[in-house]
Amino acid sequence: MNRPMIRYVLGSVLKIEALLLMLPFLVGIIYHETQAVYYVANATLCGLFGLLMTYKKPASNVFYLKEGCLTTGLSWILLSLFGALPFFATGEIPSYVDALFETISGFTTTGASILTDVEALSHASLFWRSFTHWIGGMGVLVFLLAVVPMSGGGSMNLMRAESPGPSVGKLVPKIKTTARILYVIYFSMTVLEIVLLLIFGMPVFDALTLSFGTAGTGGFGVLNSSVGSYSVWHKWIITVFMILFGVNFNFYYFLLYKQVKKGFMMEEVRWYFIIILSSIAIIFWNIKCLYPSAFEALTHAAFQVGSIITTTGFSTTDFDAWPELSRTILVLLMFIGACAGSTGGGMKVSRGVIAVKTLKKEILSYIHPKSVKKIRYEDKPIEHDVLRSLNVYIITYIFIFAISVLLLALDEQDSVTNFTAVAATFNNIGPGLSLVGPTGNFSFFSAPAKVLLMVDMLAGRLELFPMLLILQPAIWKEFFTKRQEE
Amino acid sequence: MNRPMIRYVLGSVLKIEALLLMLPFLVGIIYHETQAVYYVANATLCGLFGLLMTYKKPASNVFYLKEGCLTTGLSWILLSLFGALPFFATGEIPSYVDALFETISGFTTTGASILTDVEALSHASLFWRSFTHWIGGMGVLVFLLAVVPMSGGGSMNLMRAESPGPSVGKLVPKIKTTARILYVIYFSMTVLEIVLLLIFGMPVFDALTLSFGTAGTGGFGVLNSSVGSYSVWHKWIITVFMILFGVNFNFYYFLLYKQVKKGFMMEEVRWYFIIILSSIAIIFWNIKCLYPSAFEALTHAAFQVGSIITTTGFSTTDFDAWPELSRTILVLLMFIGACAGSTGGGMKVSRGVIAVKTLKKEILSYIHPKSVKKIRYEDKPIEHDVLRSLNVYIITYIFIFAISVLLLALDEQDSVTNFTAVAATFNNIGPGLSLVGPTGNFSFFSAPAKVLLMVDMLAGRLELFPMLLILQPAIWKEFFTKRQEE
Repeated sequence: MNRPMIRYVLGSVLKIEALLLMLPFLVGIIYHETQAVYYVANATLCGLFGLLMTYKKPASNVFYLKEGCLTTGLSWILLSLFGALPFFATGEIPSYVDALFETISGFTTTGASILTDVEALSHASLFWRSFTHWIGGMGVLVFLLAVVPMSGGGSMNLMRAESPGPSVGKLVPKIKTTARILYVIYFSMTVLEIVLLLIFGMPVFDALTLSFGTAGTGGFGVLNSSVGSYSVWHKWIITVFMILFGVNFNFYYFLLYKQVKKGFMMEEVRWYFIIILSSIAIIFWNIKCLYPSAFEALTHAAFQVGSIITTTGFSTTDFDAWPELSRTILVLLMFIGACAGSTGGGMKVSRGVIAVKTLKKEILSYIHPKSVKKIRYEDKPIEHDVLRSLNVYIITYIFIFAISVLLLALDEQDSVTNFTAVAATFNNIGPGLSLVGPTGNFSFFSAPAKVLLMVDMLAGRLELFPMLLILQPAIWKEFFTKRQEE
Repeated sequence: MNRPMIRYVLGSVLKIEALLLMLPFLVGIIYHETQAVYYVANATLCGLFGLLMTYKKPASNVFYLKEGCLTTGLSWILLSLFGALPFFATGEIPSYVDALFETISGFTTTGASILTDVEALSHASLFWRSFTHWIGGMGVLVFLLAVVPMSGGGSMNLMRAESPGPSVGKLVPKIKTTARILYVIYFSMTVLEIVLLLIFGMPVFDALTLSFGTAGTGGFGVLNSSVGSYSVWHKWIITVFMILFGVNFNFYYFLLYKQVKKGFMMEEVRWYFIIILSSIAIIFWNIKCLYPSAFEALTHAAFQVGSIITTTGFSTTDFDAWPELSRTILVLLMFIGACAGSTGGGMKVSRGVIAVKTLKKEILSYIHPKSVKKIRYEDKPIEHDVLRSLNVYIITYIFIFAISVLLLALDEQDSVTNFTAVAATFNNIGPGLSLVGPTGNFSFFSAPAKVLLMVDMLAGRLELFPMLLILQPAIWKEFFTKRQEE
């Protein structure tokens, strides 16, 4: 294993975090908050560690997939360990485990919170909390790739481990350019949302933090009522942007480079919108009698569907009180998730589409055994490798899910809480149902349960394998014994 | 499609049902019950239809897999449609939909009931109700194959469609012999259980019906308390036999033919017992403070684990009141299910073992990319086809499950009821949790919801594909337009 390279990448990640921590420091200065001190102190600490770890350049920057996975997993853990310090140091979250939960929930864009009173936090901490969503949404390693030069294969393996979805689409041959294009689209769309929210009269601080939460499909808000108390226009702007950030970014790339037709040919994006529109229609019909006007019911239905399928997790109303049909649809959407190559979580629409096609092919092969056709997706035949990795993904998903539900049961909460707590963290959504519903939070879980849910959040965000690999003793044995010889 | 052959097989199934219906008739005679009349009348009806349908022998008995699947699905539906008539005719179950639910639940060895008071039924009906479990456990078509001569390939396709598990083990080259061996083992073990229950003082009627329920891993009892009010010895006998009927029958074949070593080499059987023993241990530790003595807690733990993993569904106590950990383990066992090639339902242990191995191989291939080994199961490398069909099975399973939960949500019960009602019927278990828990029943569901659950029971028993195929318009198009030309 290329240990010097792993050290170097981790150090670079810390240096970036040091820079990012200056933003909440500035916010603290603007609002004259003493908490600002802790952010600048933490930035210094990160910077020092980062400089130490990157002082010596690695001799080789060759990187294999396992090293990519390992580095990605470790980066996110390190990022969170340092990112949690200010919450703990300022005393705003008195337990470090809770602070870490909140930070991992932030970086993984989950949005599950252990806070009972969000509004008690300082502006600096509220800003940092929401900003972690923005950083985690597109991924800090993708950012690293956009700015740090690296050899082709190695960077691809890093990107593959961090990007959501079954396969990384290299938009352009150079990985650095791909990473830059992604960040430019991401940044521009976030700015557009901020501007629109400001135009419709939202305070600057709220517009910034809510846009971070939307862009990363995270879900942390700055008010105890999440998005419930903003105007109806704000709700619709956020709805639209949540859904837009759940679209495969390749789609925007195609639009940007005037390949409009190619963009609209993307099956995943088409299905994503079909699922969203039909879910909104059914839920709207199901809940319209619960609200004074049909428009209000539609607003809530659209907001909640957008929030859950993109795994953002903002809420405007207590959907746990909705009829069973609507709640079931929302739970199913939790698992489907957004598009691959977006900032959203879940299993991804593309995996669902490929699964349906596999099934359809199988049924047809029963009826017409002699005419076995290849499955086509996005107008190309699906390679055997894609199907195999889908298979492995589903099996891994089910195992991690089952083991998590089983271990969480040791905490002795009710079944719906347990099941949806795992679903909401593993799919990076945020709120579940029952005790962890939109009006509840995750603070009542025991510390081991919180650690379990943290692992689930990381596993969900990093597409299972990096976290699974970190938990294997074999990889550590190799890490500590073998030098780079392969 | 070979329509004459399909007709002929369906007719033969009805003739067998006519004979089987004479047994509850005899029971009715013994207990001087007027309900006996309806059983003999129904037997006559079945017999007449059967004779009509088998009057003309088919010119060819060539049978393809799709015809095998279709015939199997139709056989089970026909069997249930006629089998439900006596319950309805005697007025003991006033609604035909309910009677059909009870019958399908019987034949599929689910054991989910719509009856609030089981003890109000006549002996004839109670006997028939439990006897459907015995018939469905090993399968009526397997019985047919044991007695009716058929060409090799065709009968294999029938058996493959009816037998539980990922692959049918042809024990001996001749399918007819295989079917006979299976029935001999099945019959002998049932008799052994009856004798043991009688020795320990159980009334004859109860010993017969409970043994049918155990053998088929069904779960219908004859008392409202299920198995709760029998002596502790009876409970242990039933526990042991439930677990034994959940073992892959190939194991008994190996023992019978003195291939003991080969039998104990069966990975699936080993894992089956490991899962059972560890579940009992954890649940025992978890519930021991709830019962007056440790032995009583152990009795309940062992009984419930055996009952759920084999998908029998008998209950001795209200496990819905157990701590969350125990309930979660039971829910997970519902999905794992018994061994392939047993009378039990669920996903089957072998599928779980193969899935774990796939996962392990994948992780290893990340760590040591250059040494990719074939996965071995039961000491043989797993063929690509087995993995592919496992993949398709899991995808199909998830889809049917998700769609069922969604449709059932229209009935507006609570989430736990909905989720576990689907889990309990689809895995052919019987009771779930909450409203459909061991003290509840399925009567409150609307008629469409009951029909949905019936489809789930049949899909679960027939390993998904036959039912999925019957629901395809394409197969009916072919059925009605094309004559045998392939």
